[in-house]
Amino acid sequence: MAESTYTVTGMTCDHCVASVTEEVSEIPGVTDVDVDLATGAVKVTSAEPVAEADVRAAVEEAGYALAS
Amino acid sequence: MAESTYTVTGMTCDHCVASVTEEVSEIPGVTDVDVDLATGAVKVTSAEPVAEADVRAAVEEAGYALAS
Repeated sequence: MAESTYTVTGMTCDHCVASVTEEVSEIPGVTDVDVDLATGAVKVTSAEPVAEADVRAAVEEAGYALAS
Repeated sequence: MAESTYTVTGMTCDHCVASVTEEVSEIPGVTDVDVDLATGAVKVTSAEPVAEADVRAAVEEAGYALAS
Protein backbone atom coordinates (compact mmCIF):
# COMPACT_ATOMS: atom_id res chain seq x y z
CA MET A 1 0.00 0.00 0.00
CA ALA A 2 1.23 3.51 -0.81
CA GLU A 3 0.25 6.88 0.63
CA SER A 4 1.15 10.27 -0.78
CA THR A 5 -0.03 13.69 0.26
CA TYR A 6 -0.32 16.61 -2.15
CA THR A 7 -1.41 20.20 -1.70
CA VAL A 8 -4.19 21.43 -3.95
CA THR A 9 -4.93 25.13 -4.39
CA GLY A 10 -8.20 26.81 -5.26
CA MET A 11 -10.68 24.68 -3.32
CA THR A 12 -13.18 26.95 -1.58
CA CYS A 13 -16.05 24.74 -0.49
CA ASP A 14 -17.24 21.19 0.01
CA HIS A 15 -18.30 20.97 -3.61
CA CYS A 16 -14.68 21.58 -4.60
CA VAL A 17 -13.60 18.84 -2.21
CA ALA A 18 -16.12 16.47 -3.78
CA SER A 19 -14.89 17.26 -7.30
CA VAL A 20 -11.25 16.65 -6.43
CA THR A 21 -12.09 13.49 -4.50
CA GLU A 22 -14.10 12.13 -7.42
CA GLU A 23 -11.44 12.77 -10.05
CA VAL A 24 -8.50 11.49 -8.00
CA SER A 25 -10.51 8.41 -6.98
CA GLU A 26 -10.80 7.49 -10.66
CA ILE A 27 -7.03 6.99 -11.01
CA PRO A 28 -6.46 3.24 -11.42
CA GLY A 29 -5.25 1.65 -8.19
CA VAL A 30 -6.40 4.45 -5.91
CA THR A 31 -8.32 3.03 -2.96
CA ASP A 32 -8.88 6.12 -0.82
CA VAL A 33 -8.74 9.89 -1.15
CA ASP A 34 -8.90 12.18 1.86
CA VAL A 35 -9.17 15.92 1.28
CA ASP A 36 -8.77 18.63 3.91
CA LEU A 37 -10.44 21.79 2.66
CA ALA A 38 -8.79 24.11 5.17
CA THR A 39 -5.23 23.15 4.28
CA GLY A 40 -5.71 21.86 0.73
CA ALA A 41 -4.04 18.58 1.73
CA VAL A 42 -5.06 15.61 -0.42
CA LYS A 43 -3.96 12.21 0.87
CA VAL A 44 -4.00 9.52 -1.78
CA THR A 45 -3.94 5.86 -0.77
CA SER A 46 -3.27 3.27 -3.43
CA ALA A 47 -2.23 -0.34 -3.88
CA GLU A 48 0.91 0.72 -5.75
CA PRO A 49 2.50 4.18 -5.89
CA VAL A 50 0.66 6.56 -8.23
CA ALA A 51 2.56 8.85 -10.59
CA GLU A 52 2.39 12.49 -9.53
CA ALA A 53 1.59 13.36 -13.13
CA ASP A 54 -1.60 11.30 -12.87
CA VAL A 55 -2.62 13.07 -9.67
CA ARG A 56 -1.84 16.44 -11.23
CA ALA A 57 -3.94 15.58 -14.28
CA ALA A 58 -6.88 14.46 -12.13
CA VAL A 59 -6.73 17.60 -9.99
CA GLU A 60 -6.59 19.78 -13.10
CA GLU A 61 -9.50 17.85 -14.63
CA ALA A 62 -11.49 18.81 -11.52
CA GLY A 63 -10.60 22.45 -12.16
CA TYR A 64 -7.88 22.98 -9.54
CA ALA A 65 -4.09 22.86 -9.34
CA LEU A 66 -1.33 21.17 -7.39
CA ALA A 67 0.81 23.57 -5.42
CA SER A 68 4.24 23.53 -7.02
CA MET B 1 -44.07 37.49 -15.69
CA ALA B 2 -42.41 38.39 -12.41
CA GLU B 3 -38.79 39.12 -11.56
CA SER B 4 -37.31 39.35 -8.09
CA THR B 5 -33.70 39.67 -7.05
CA TYR B 6 -32.38 38.31 -3.77
CA THR B 7 -28.93 38.33 -2.21
CA VAL B 8 -27.48 34.98 -1.20
CA THR B 9 -24.53 34.68 1.16
CA GLY B 10 -21.92 31.95 1.38
CA MET B 11 -21.44 31.08 -2.28
CA THR B 12 -17.72 30.73 -2.98
CA CYS B 13 -17.41 29.00 -6.34
CA ASP B 14 -19.25 27.92 -9.45
CA HIS B 15 -20.37 24.71 -7.76
CA CYS B 16 -22.22 26.82 -5.21
CA VAL B 17 -23.82 28.79 -8.03
CA ALA B 18 -24.93 25.54 -9.65
CA SER B 19 -26.45 24.25 -6.40
CA VAL B 20 -28.44 27.43 -5.78
CA THR B 21 -29.56 27.60 -9.41
CA GLU B 22 -30.75 24.00 -9.31
CA GLU B 23 -32.73 24.33 -6.08
CA VAL B 24 -34.36 27.66 -6.94
CA SER B 25 -35.20 26.39 -10.44
CA GLU B 26 -37.27 23.61 -8.86
CA ILE B 27 -39.74 26.08 -7.31
CA PRO B 28 -43.01 25.70 -9.24
CA GLY B 29 -43.50 28.49 -11.78
CA VAL B 30 -39.85 29.55 -11.89
CA THR B 31 -38.71 29.87 -15.49
CA ASP B 32 -35.22 31.32 -15.09
CA VAL B 33 -32.60 31.76 -12.38
CA ASP B 34 -29.57 33.96 -12.87
CA VAL B 35 -26.86 33.94 -10.19
CA ASP B 36 -23.94 36.35 -9.93
CA LEU B 37 -21.24 34.77 -7.81
CA ALA B 38 -19.32 37.99 -7.19
CA THR B 39 -22.27 39.87 -5.70
CA GLY B 40 -24.45 37.01 -4.52
CA ALA B 41 -27.35 38.40 -6.54
CA VAL B 42 -29.92 35.80 -7.54
CA LYS B 43 -32.52 36.95 -10.08
CA VAL B 44 -35.60 34.78 -10.17
CA THR B 45 -37.96 34.95 -13.13
CA SER B 46 -41.35 33.32 -12.86
CA ALA B 47 -44.77 33.25 -14.46
CA GLU B 48 -46.38 34.48 -11.25
CA PRO B 49 -44.68 36.08 -8.23
CA VAL B 50 -42.90 33.53 -6.02
CA ALA B 51 -43.15 33.70 -2.23
CA GLU B 52 -39.90 34.83 -0.61
CA ALA B 53 -40.32 31.98 1.87
CA ASP B 54 -40.10 29.51 -1.01
CA VAL B 55 -36.93 31.13 -2.33
CA ARG B 56 -35.46 31.18 1.15
CA ALA B 57 -36.26 27.48 1.64
CA ALA B 58 -34.68 26.56 -1.70
CA VAL B 59 -31.53 28.55 -0.96
CA GLU B 60 -31.25 26.94 2.46
CA GLU B 61 -31.83 23.51 0.93
CA ALA B 62 -28.80 24.22 -1.26
CA GLY B 63 -26.80 25.02 1.89
CA TYR B 64 -26.72 28.81 1.72
CA ALA B 65 -28.69 31.72 3.15
CA LEU B 66 -30.59 34.78 2.04
CA ALA B 67 -29.11 38.01 3.27
CA SER B 68 -31.59 39.50 5.72
